[in-house]
Amino acid sequence: MTRQSVTTVRGGITAPQGFTAAGIHCGIKKKRLPDLALLVSKRNGSVAGVFTTNRLAAASVTLNRLKLRRKTARAILVNSGNANAVTGEQGYADAVEMAELVGKRLGIAPHTVFVGSTGVIGQPLPMARIRQGVPALIKQLRRAGGHDAAKAILTTDLRTKESACRTRIGGRTITVGGMAKGSGMIHPDMATMLAYVTTDAAIEPSTLQQALTAAVAKSFNCISVDGDSSTNDSVLCLANGLAGNPILRAGSPALAAFQRALDQVCLDLAMKVIRDGEGVTKVVKLAVTGARTHADAKQIAKTVGTSLLVKTALFGEDANWGRIAAALGRAGVAIDSRRIGLAFDGVPILKAGRPLGASAQRRIDRIVKSREFTVAIAVGSGPASATLWITDLSYEYVRINASYRS
Amino acid sequence: MTRQSVTTVRGGITAPQGFTAAGIHCGIKKKRLPDLALLVSKRNGSVAGVFTTNRLAAASVTLNRLKLRRKTARAILVNSGNANAVTGEQGYADAVEMAELVGKRLGIAPHTVFVGSTGVIGQPLPMARIRQGVPALIKQLRRAGGHDAAKAILTTDLRTKESACRTRIGGRTITVGGMAKGSGMIHPDMATMLAYVTTDAAIEPSTLQQALTAAVAKSFNCISVDGDSSTNDSVLCLANGLAGNPILRAGSPALAAFQRALDQVCLDLAMKVIRDGEGVTKVVKLAVTGARTHADAKQIAKTVGTSLLVKTALFGEDANWGRIAAALGRAGVAIDSRRIGLAFDGVPILKAGRPLGASAQRRIDRIVKSREFTVAIAVGSGPASATLWITDLSYEYVRINASYRS
Repeated sequence: MTRQSVTTVRGGITAPQGFTAAGIHCGIKKKRLPDLALLVSKRNGSVAGVFTTNRLAAASVTLNRLKLRRKTARAILVNSGNANAVTGEQGYADAVEMAELVGKRLGIAPHTVFVGSTGVIGQPLPMARIRQGVPALIKQLRRAGGHDAAKAILTTDLRTKESACRTRIGGRTITVGGMAKGSGMIHPDMATMLAYVTTDAAIEPSTLQQALTAAVAKSFNCISVDGDSSTNDSVLCLANGLAGNPILRAGSPALAAFQRALDQVCLDLAMKVIRDGEGVTKVVKLAVTGARTHADAKQIAKTVGTSLLVKTALFGEDANWGRIAAALGRAGVAIDSRRIGLAFDGVPILKAGRPLGASAQRRIDRIVKSREFTVAIAVGSGPASATLWITDLSYEYVRINASYRS
Repeated sequence: MTRQSVTTVRGGITAPQGFTAAGIHCGIKKKRLPDLALLVSKRNGSVAGVFTTNRLAAASVTLNRLKLRRKTARAILVNSGNANAVTGEQGYADAVEMAELVGKRLGIAPHTVFVGSTGVIGQPLPMARIRQGVPALIKQLRRAGGHDAAKAILTTDLRTKESACRTRIGGRTITVGGMAKGSGMIHPDMATMLAYVTTDAAIEPSTLQQALTAAVAKSFNCISVDGDSSTNDSVLCLANGLAGNPILRAGSPALAAFQRALDQVCLDLAMKVIRDGEGVTKVVKLAVTGARTHADAKQIAKTVGTSLLVKTALFGEDANWGRIAAALGRAGVAIDSRRIGLAFDGVPILKAGRPLGASAQRRIDRIVKSREFTVAIAVGSGPASATLWITDLSYEYVRINASYRS
């Protein structure tokens, strides 16, 4: 079998067949910005999800986890401006009501309606506004509404994040589309933002779940803006089967093509999230090699990637690689100091534990002025590696987060 | 036995009998700021030390650990402006030479001369300047030189940090003094800066080590500015016995009085370090209670205390307690969401998992405008607690660290 190619196409969550969407302002946000989004599939589909590991998960996360057991989804209602997290029983009741509002109006079972919330934590959801908003939102549902929905899930984001691509499976064209929000509270292992992925591929729920988990591990779980992970982080994938391909199951030969398409959308969305990170002026790829285990490699990447000293040096365009060395030394992982190495875009500055000279320093001084570059970190002769995309820490990051609620 | 009181006195490392010190500019720092400090005891004393857990420990740390085995110290030479860390074999040879320079000039055994370095990582130490500086430094040694030494160990610090106190043991007055440097790379469990403590008490080395470890656990290991811990962090304590008290040993009844004096100096220095933290505008005491174990409580405090979202909210004087809740949810520790509570300076805002109303919010809105306040975090009904003093994250922090080398 030849490797089926994946083609990028325009659009987002409504690029696949049989999906409509809408986004409106219902009054949760103070400014007149869109704050309520709805995605609806023409028919019930398979659904998969990856959620925050935060122990104070938001009401929507707890509820979606339950819904996911029934493996079927038809619609997703998302509000921005309020996270409905740490809101006690009332918050949970509000999340249940959100799904019911959509279910009733559309005449579909509430358990097929998933919900999402993002915004300030610990404030009651203004349900009156959502009750009023849902009918108006439903009226706006259309194929071209994907972009409006992508706008309505944003908080501090500067840009909408959409992606879509196509491939062929069993003689049929299948499309994968997605939208995401997130620019703060971005950190691995928590599926660190909201992302919604749609496809018209026919695929069994358990196979979809495996494919989504694999795609998230290589995309959303490899970016870090601020080391925080929210109470609300979720990635949901809805597959309605309208492409008419033979149903993908574990072991289907065409599964690889679907996985590539899903990977592409997830990675594209993840890179859009990190490039739109709060106050970001640099995106740096940390490539750790030579670790004993993948967990060790990841731990090192995370320790370096969350170091305030590393992040402020990146912002200052200061090739102060000693801060990277100091961070990897405190990662809690065995390191062979005679084998560590550092290179910026392929230019080594530390080799076998020894700093190279002033000419290497001058070269990396230039490299750190680029908007995006790679730092290769060798920590020993082990077989394991990990990649993490990180950002700098700027005045703008502090400004945004010191005044988020005001 | 009555509880012996501890009295604060003026001065620092030369407050106890038999210590002289000096600080000069030898040329390591570009600006004409003092960068070389020396502390000398009239006679050999007991020595104890607590060092960074960073796996890429600086040459001075590796060397001091070895010296510590012989349990005897006479002098400490410290340079600022260069950390002599990640500098390979040459860096280690330079640290050895630093001790030898002092040993030769003073006619004392090099193994009794401890060394310290703080500053930029990964740059070779300018040994020619140190060689030239040591004789000049020795000429300056005097009882009144403690303050000069305290100035010469600083890097980005704005203020010198000194402390001293007195108590009585066995009819003799004993004095404990100390100096510290540190305002960045401040985080628990790594003895997070340089601190040098002196005493004229007579005490066995192993008892001194236990006392110092206990004092550090309650002081330097309970402050966090930026979550980073350096390659060079060290606390050394030198006890020369000139007070003439009966030698303190494990089980000595007077040990408690000595411990209180040592605790006071360490805590005072630690609070001076955090109040002088880079760009700090707020110092907040996190008091975690109700955890199952002390390690759990500490993990929660650290996760909250290093959250960029919490720290920027503090800077913005924004009582956005939801960010504290979100951080404690991702601490990796079991939390009972129906038992969590938050209170600012005694005013509850979250009780048994439920947010309190707008009037509580207004009260805490006022409290977060104070320069120092306490946040009590209840996480369950367990017996364990932990305290951590943290700081905010300001524009000034970013400015200092984006331009440290330039």
